[in-house]
Amino acid sequence: VVIETNVHRATLAELPAEQIESVLRAWQERMVDLSRDVRLKSVIAFKNHGGPAGATLVHAHSQLVALPFVPEVFRAEERAAAEHFAAKERCVFCDVIAQEQRDRERVVLESDDAVVLSPWAARSPFELWILPRDHHSSFETAPQEQLRAVAEALRTVLRKVEVALERPAFNLFLQTMPLREPLNDYYHWRLSLKPVLTLQAGFEWASGCSINPTPPEEAASFLRQTEVIP
Amino acid sequence: VVIETNVHRATLAELPAEQIESVLRAWQERMVDLSRDVRLKSVIAFKNHGGPAGATLVHAHSQLVALPFVPEVFRAEERAAAEHFAAKERCVFCDVIAQEQRDRERVVLESDDAVVLSPWAARSPFELWILPRDHHSSFETAPQEQLRAVAEALRTVLRKVEVALERPAFNLFLQTMPLREPLNDYYHWRLSLKPVLTLQAGFEWASGCSINPTPPEEAASFLRQTEVIP
Repeated sequence: VVIETNVHRATLAELPAEQIESVLRAWQERMVDLSRDVRLKSVIAFKNHGGPAGATLVHAHSQLVALPFVPEVFRAEERAAAEHFAAKERCVFCDVIAQEQRDRERVVLESDDAVVLSPWAARSPFELWILPRDHHSSFETAPQEQLRAVAEALRTVLRKVEVALERPAFNLFLQTMPLREPLNDYYHWRLSLKPVLTLQAGFEWASGCSINPTPPEEAASFLRQTEVIP
Repeated sequence: VVIETNVHRATLAELPAEQIESVLRAWQERMVDLSRDVRLKSVIAFKNHGGPAGATLVHAHSQLVALPFVPEVFRAEERAAAEHFAAKERCVFCDVIAQEQRDRERVVLESDDAVVLSPWAARSPFELWILPRDHHSSFETAPQEQLRAVAEALRTVLRKVEVALERPAFNLFLQTMPLREPLNDYYHWRLSLKPVLTLQAGFEWASGCSINPTPPEEAASFLRQTEVIP
């Protein structure tokens, strides 16, 4: 468990960017340390904020769970990324960033070193990806500039989400290569942010498919227009 | 949408077995009718009961959604069942029923024609399967005796769940072969019942894995001991 602040009621969005960066750095340091245990194959880093998102503690915190296997959902995404690279010789996430910047419709914000967008096939309303702009497959070895840029983008988008959606519960989680795997050209680490606005119900359990009543273009447009104090 | 009763406040568990059977028959009749449209490849039949399970209507109802594709989660289960059949020449679900009846630990109730058990790898507390005892791969063509037996078992287990877990919200859904596929020896239709007692949170989203704090043996034992008026 990573305790994100010494202020009991402060939320991650209220912390200065440097402190959010230090939370990501704590994730990274723990991940590097856990990677020394070869029984561990992957680390799930996540944050549940608010009761409807599964949080049982009020004090701002995030969690790391090391697993002795690599989850199949990750391997499926990795296979798709590797197939894209085999066909195009480009990272699919770098391609998504370039295409979204041309289209503009699903981009929420961007800086020199990070981009926030609502993915084309968002699984839930206001699902968001926070990506470092430069290609890097693994969070474990991401340069500090990437952590800083992603922390700043995360802070701004969390503040927009707090205003636009009236402080919703949310899940935040890291998507990255498994532990100790060499850097590659086809995968690109990112954070995923999912405000909790809908429920997983019978249809979703039975089909494995998601119902999202909010098009990502509407979510991105709404968040672009939401003003926050820098 | 299938309206299950004309009594506004009645729950499915409170209906007579014949009426629950008629709900399943309505599902089957709609499925047979939908199967005439060759654009439709599968039908998801489900019931969300209570707000935390995603229900937006109070009046007892279930829903059918026809899809122009077969969900990948179903195909993955089907592949595993076909592999078991290729290795053993037996239906894996018939094997599960036989093994669970020997072990007894995860069986909640059984009748001549149906079995209710908490599966060995239950994904959530009190996840339950209601299976017809005789092998039949598709709900679409299931004989009326199977619908009757499953309806009776469903009624009893729903009443046990209502008493044991204090009327929880729940999702109920059908797992069956896609539309129009010929009967086979390896798949076995069933109902899945998931009381809503935990939430899908950051770890589950990131890993695709479920955290279940209640072993299926404890859930089954608790429900076996829960007495209900027949």
